[in-house]
Amino acid sequence: MSLYNYENNQIIYALATGWANTPIGVIRISGVSSIEKVSTIFSRGKALTKAASHTAHYGTLIDPKTKAKIDEVLITVFTGGRGYTGQESLEISCHGSPVGIRAIFRALESLGFRSALPGEFTFRAFMNGKLDLTQAEAIMEIINSESSLSHSLALNRLEGNLFDQIDLIKQDILDSVSVIELQLDYAEDEIIDSTDFPTQLVEKSVKALENLIETYSVSQLYSQEQKVVLVGSTNVGKSTLFNLLLKEERSIVSDIHGTTRDFIESKTVLDSIPIHLYDTAGLRDSGDSIEQEGIKRSKRLIEVADLILFMVDSSNFENNFNSLEQEIISDSRTLVVWNKTDLNGNAPLKGSFPLSAKKGEGFKNLKEAMIKKLTKEVKKPHQEAVVIESERQKRELERSLGALEKALQYNSQNVPLDFIAVELNEALDALGTLTGEVASSDILENIFSNFCVGK
Amino acid sequence: MSLYNYENNQIIYALATGWANTPIGVIRISGVSSIEKVSTIFSRGKALTKAASHTAHYGTLIDPKTKAKIDEVLITVFTGGRGYTGQESLEISCHGSPVGIRAIFRALESLGFRSALPGEFTFRAFMNGKLDLTQAEAIMEIINSESSLSHSLALNRLEGNLFDQIDLIKQDILDSVSVIELQLDYAEDEIIDSTDFPTQLVEKSVKALENLIETYSVSQLYSQEQKVVLVGSTNVGKSTLFNLLLKEERSIVSDIHGTTRDFIESKTVLDSIPIHLYDTAGLRDSGDSIEQEGIKRSKRLIEVADLILFMVDSSNFENNFNSLEQEIISDSRTLVVWNKTDLNGNAPLKGSFPLSAKKGEGFKNLKEAMIKKLTKEVKKPHQEAVVIESERQKRELERSLGALEKALQYNSQNVPLDFIAVELNEALDALGTLTGEVASSDILENIFSNFCVGK
Repeated sequence: MSLYNYENNQIIYALATGWANTPIGVIRISGVSSIEKVSTIFSRGKALTKAASHTAHYGTLIDPKTKAKIDEVLITVFTGGRGYTGQESLEISCHGSPVGIRAIFRALESLGFRSALPGEFTFRAFMNGKLDLTQAEAIMEIINSESSLSHSLALNRLEGNLFDQIDLIKQDILDSVSVIELQLDYAEDEIIDSTDFPTQLVEKSVKALENLIETYSVSQLYSQEQKVVLVGSTNVGKSTLFNLLLKEERSIVSDIHGTTRDFIESKTVLDSIPIHLYDTAGLRDSGDSIEQEGIKRSKRLIEVADLILFMVDSSNFENNFNSLEQEIISDSRTLVVWNKTDLNGNAPLKGSFPLSAKKGEGFKNLKEAMIKKLTKEVKKPHQEAVVIESERQKRELERSLGALEKALQYNSQNVPLDFIAVELNEALDALGTLTGEVASSDILENIFSNFCVGK
Repeated sequence: MSLYNYENNQIIYALATGWANTPIGVIRISGVSSIEKVSTIFSRGKALTKAASHTAHYGTLIDPKTKAKIDEVLITVFTGGRGYTGQESLEISCHGSPVGIRAIFRALESLGFRSALPGEFTFRAFMNGKLDLTQAEAIMEIINSESSLSHSLALNRLEGNLFDQIDLIKQDILDSVSVIELQLDYAEDEIIDSTDFPTQLVEKSVKALENLIETYSVSQLYSQEQKVVLVGSTNVGKSTLFNLLLKEERSIVSDIHGTTRDFIESKTVLDSIPIHLYDTAGLRDSGDSIEQEGIKRSKRLIEVADLILFMVDSSNFENNFNSLEQEIISDSRTLVVWNKTDLNGNAPLKGSFPLSAKKGEGFKNLKEAMIKKLTKEVKKPHQEAVVIESERQKRELERSLGALEKALQYNSQNVPLDFIAVELNEALDALGTLTGEVASSDILENIFSNFCVGK
């Protein structure tokens, strides 16, 4: 099913909250005449049809077929284009019961409403000029943000700061295009002087694009989970460090369901970097078949880790690492943790980080080293910074940059101005695609289908 | 922490939707001056303080310390006593991002708000006379309902039908008390004639209470999950029947997380009865230790089952059941399913249900037998029926009934009227406790602490 197979004037509905037993569930509805239609199944239908925008109305939903009461609800109406979608719309706040929500869905369907496709509400907002594409993308980025920094950065984009910055670059390129097209108009009469090429202006745009593209790696660091894997024999203190790291910032989702319980995992945030933490089984083969399976899984985790914490018990240190352990120690992603310094005064292993996980001593140093390794010393952005987050945005910026660079190159090689103009227009097209002004249906389809239903 | 350690005028907040990445999250806030306080962190604070009740306002929440933007939100205000709690209150509809929601919580806490206790919103609604106790309980029963029938029955209670019915009984008992107290007033002067005891009226109340108590088993059947366990060797067609049963009514929660995967489980609904379906491992011991563990778990499931479907492959039938299997077959909770009738024309085992799970033949019969066994032929209530659901309600009704029966007994034994009056007052007290008119803090504590946070 494609968003484009459907008419903008169909009435759509979707649950905008989770399918769980919670106090409140919110059902979104959007489309022409949606208020009037909902009023036919509402105990206070007249109040609804006469309601001013942004007012909430308490009453009972009635099944249109059986006339049975479905639920007591609070309906907020948004008249004209004042809703999220830029259309007439409603939000039904009902009891958060999956059974009751399904009953409401059935009633809506019998009125001719249909279930919304993923992203269809935001798609309508985009089509109705309420949002550009960078803002539309920002909405999913806000919802899925894993740290407060990435939440703030996405909120900035929702407020249009990325759009504004791209718009400034576009203005400069447009100015460059004007200079060249003016010359092309006279080209048949005169010999073109290549010094009229607006080199400085184009170079300014190149620089601005490069800066924006650079922000991609920064935003990835703060928006994508970094995998941190704890490795070491049993009783070296892995779970103590695990808990110490979790305490850093209260874990948002403390329980992660998985079919395998060979390792323990949890989420935390370290200096705004979202962390997925794994405590692995040991790496020593005792011949036990279950343990062998555990080692296999630990190895797989180590392969995909962004950072490995290799823990050693300094009070019981024998320096007889097996080949796998030696490989991990010399891996550039590894920090060796010299734990249990409270029990032993031995000089730490070269390059290792002394720690008493039990007493917390040395933890600050270790954290700083972890952050340094994870960030690769990339500077943490200010929460009001303009950064890009989506792969798509990066691609279009690079296309625009590539075209500008080609224009500069053509100019230095005295290639005719028509060819240069083509490149500048290509650069503009890429930026227009980025913000959605010239986006094709394929591109839109691709963006909005990654949304969740109800957004 | 107890609800009673806190003042009704403190401002409380809670998330009323789930902790998941969803389009919308709703934060409830209630307490004196809550609107004015929230206005200090809202970009359109003035609009909020001047707002009429039941109006929604779009704007940005601002961190009171850092002045950073927290989220774009829609705030609905309920002035005076017009909110759910009977107090001034607000609902913040924000992006459904756990990170963003936590940031809003931090901002609210810095304004002096505190996180609500479980059930505290409904507790305030009760204390402010918006709901009686049967309605308060109905709210959690609606949220947790597992079938549309139990959802409807709970909705009836929320609308006060149980309260109304109890009120009628109470009026009758009050009338009986009046008759007796009138006589007690004159007791010092005259000889009391026991024929003045309002036997018929009390008997009417007894009957009404008995009828209400009887509804408990009915509501349990339709509100509590019934455990249906599929048992049989491998390849008898258990999973085909499992899927056939799931298709009956689209399963609400299709995935159930568990640490063990020895059995498959899912939920469905059968003629309004919520069903938790288990497909077990076999019951034949091959000596394999993993398989032995599986048998142990199957046995535990069989012990707690409400209904056992023992499946036999009729095309490959050997009639050599082991002792455990024989025990299950003769269990009164068991239906024997004579499966794969499409492959074989053999006469079915006595008392078994012929089925072709593959072709669906015989399924209707089997379903009817399942429903009959689960309901024990209890009549399915009409969706507008008045039924009780909570154990507590049943207990108070029984206390009331017991006191009335004692009154009748005392009367037939010519026990002095003072003693009878005590019993009638006890009957009234029980009903008052049920609706919350005379409920002690212990009882309230117990009811509301079983609520979820945000309700």
